[in-house]
Amino acid sequence: MKYAFAALLMSCLPYGALAQSTGDLGLVIERANGSLVVVDRSDRAAIGRIEGLGDLSHASLTYGPDERFAYVFGRDGGLSKVDILERKVVARTVQAGNSIGGAISDDGRLVAVSNYEPGGIKVFDAETLELVADIPAAGKTVGLVDVPGRRFAWAVWDTGEVFLGDFSGAEPAVRMIGIAGANPFDAVLTDDAHTFLVGLFGEKGVTAFDLWSDAPVPQKFLTGYGKTGEDMPVYKMPHLQSWAFTEGQYALPAVGRHEVLWVDRDTQAQVASTPVHGQPVFIIAQPASPYVWVNFATPLNDVVQVIDSRSHEVVATLNPGKAILHMEFAPRGAEVWISARDDNKVLVYDTRTREKLAEIDAVAPSGIFFTARAHQTGL
Amino acid sequence: MKYAFAALLMSCLPYGALAQSTGDLGLVIERANGSLVVVDRSDRAAIGRIEGLGDLSHASLTYGPDERFAYVFGRDGGLSKVDILERKVVARTVQAGNSIGGAISDDGRLVAVSNYEPGGIKVFDAETLELVADIPAAGKTVGLVDVPGRRFAWAVWDTGEVFLGDFSGAEPAVRMIGIAGANPFDAVLTDDAHTFLVGLFGEKGVTAFDLWSDAPVPQKFLTGYGKTGEDMPVYKMPHLQSWAFTEGQYALPAVGRHEVLWVDRDTQAQVASTPVHGQPVFIIAQPASPYVWVNFATPLNDVVQVIDSRSHEVVATLNPGKAILHMEFAPRGAEVWISARDDNKVLVYDTRTREKLAEIDAVAPSGIFFTARAHQTGL
Repeated sequence: MKYAFAALLMSCLPYGALAQSTGDLGLVIERANGSLVVVDRSDRAAIGRIEGLGDLSHASLTYGPDERFAYVFGRDGGLSKVDILERKVVARTVQAGNSIGGAISDDGRLVAVSNYEPGGIKVFDAETLELVADIPAAGKTVGLVDVPGRRFAWAVWDTGEVFLGDFSGAEPAVRMIGIAGANPFDAVLTDDAHTFLVGLFGEKGVTAFDLWSDAPVPQKFLTGYGKTGEDMPVYKMPHLQSWAFTEGQYALPAVGRHEVLWVDRDTQAQVASTPVHGQPVFIIAQPASPYVWVNFATPLNDVVQVIDSRSHEVVATLNPGKAILHMEFAPRGAEVWISARDDNKVLVYDTRTREKLAEIDAVAPSGIFFTARAHQTGL
Repeated sequence: MKYAFAALLMSCLPYGALAQSTGDLGLVIERANGSLVVVDRSDRAAIGRIEGLGDLSHASLTYGPDERFAYVFGRDGGLSKVDILERKVVARTVQAGNSIGGAISDDGRLVAVSNYEPGGIKVFDAETLELVADIPAAGKTVGLVDVPGRRFAWAVWDTGEVFLGDFSGAEPAVRMIGIAGANPFDAVLTDDAHTFLVGLFGEKGVTAFDLWSDAPVPQKFLTGYGKTGEDMPVYKMPHLQSWAFTEGQYALPAVGRHEVLWVDRDTQAQVASTPVHGQPVFIIAQPASPYVWVNFATPLNDVVQVIDSRSHEVVATLNPGKAILHMEFAPRGAEVWISARDDNKVLVYDTRTREKLAEIDAVAPSGIFFTARAHQTGL
């Protein structure tokens, strides 16, 4: 009887840790240790750690719709499924030699990974991580996003091809929808899933594909930016995934230049440029506000700037810490969490006062991902 | 020792029910019974019921940032806080004689309620439901929304006044920001929190306030719609809270007419109108798509229509059931859940095929609210 009690007790004790809703949680990547810090937004605190995720030196993650499970894409080709409530890795597969992010289908049933070596994408069952589809490519795949209707879109660095894959049927239906241009380095889907924007590195410009159209016609724009100056070396490729859309504009990082470019969303004409502190890496819109926040490539990566999308002026320059790698906003915009890798801290700022509210310890933190991402298209 | 074991066991048993993440849950209002059905989106199933909420004949609710607690606004002036994990009411106050919805501040700390009798708004501590501020008005308050920076905006039916209240400091700072016009019946905030749009019933038109401006100038538009026809009786006031914004347009229900009006978001000029089945009640954008879905006022309320925001044409007419009161989309748009009050069912449709996927029993269901709303501004 006593043993029965003890067994029951053992079986129910772990549930203590599970008495936890998941809407205000997040994960912070500790890039040097292959671990994740579990954070609670409401308490502005670290509440746990998940280890054993392999090489997270350039990692990202996405969430299942229940905000309990996260899928972590490591640089080493590792795809890991972690349980935030139980704080452990529940499935893991090393599915390629070198991967660069992934996405989850709109219904939460499929996880796709974008690979460099060998190129292509692989699609997995989100429940079990069993391989569902293996789509090769003639080079490195970049800019993988989810598209409504259990679809994904991606581009190929080496060939400039852009693909749309439909995984809603018994067999995958993948088609090439056009050539973006020379060396796509990343891509992004607008929040309405209307336009897939592919940034080019081998030539100047961005190419837009209308994913609401059955036969999208590639439209290249921003082909002439920075013609009057000399380009600088690119120490760190900008990320387009968090590309800001605000006030009917795109805010675009100029590759090889210390500028943010503003493009009219309807006409795709450049409407302004903002000189900034360094080469932009992330340009992220503060939700429900006119502001975008920008961080910068090494060696100018100790600074964050805030730009007003109406005037295109820098309205604030912050010095949060050493090696600012990422920024993540509370989904309704009240706070921004900033990772300072070389200070081993995550910093929490009030977006209205732009004052620091809290610091959270983390070992060499890079990406910060709140669970609210589970409900957004194109991440 | 045995008692100690038993006590421990008792204390941990309830946690079994709590081993539940909250990202894909929702609540359905059972309007006749004063109860809520807890639903799981991933399983397309009812998983519990919460009772004792008073008069829910015209009720709405909002979620705290952790997606564990919901705040239910009843027609009888009751404000109830419910725990989705424990499935019970954890706090309740009857704070007015007749209320009409509420909102939660961007940081999740304050809940505001909009009242008819007596008019005004009351603001409560989200943790305890203790009264924090009591702001009277010279009439019925309508269109209450949260605005970033711990603020709320609302309008007054009787006077046409529009107020912006800042509750971030020690004392509330409330100011009248302009007169919308005759008898505002509802209002809505654009997703970027830029424009507060107030619908008028006492005259034709909608009045816009720029909440990014320190001194917004009211701008009235759509003042001439339907001048060539005769207005019909309004059996059910349309709701603006779910007013669709898509393709650079607002999709607006024409009061007293069987039409959806399309307005250019930049110029506020009417660009099209779509003849529809009845007086629109909710016009809701299917996330990440070009489509809006419309339901209708009694007696034409057995039908749902889908309109393409590019062509402004009705592309589908569905007959889901009797007395369709509400529609709620999965946050990334893959499904829509529809309440059929007089069939005592919630119906789940695939938005791509527009085929029914599932039915869920509920007693006289009205509003459907998924927890993902916790992360959206202006709801």
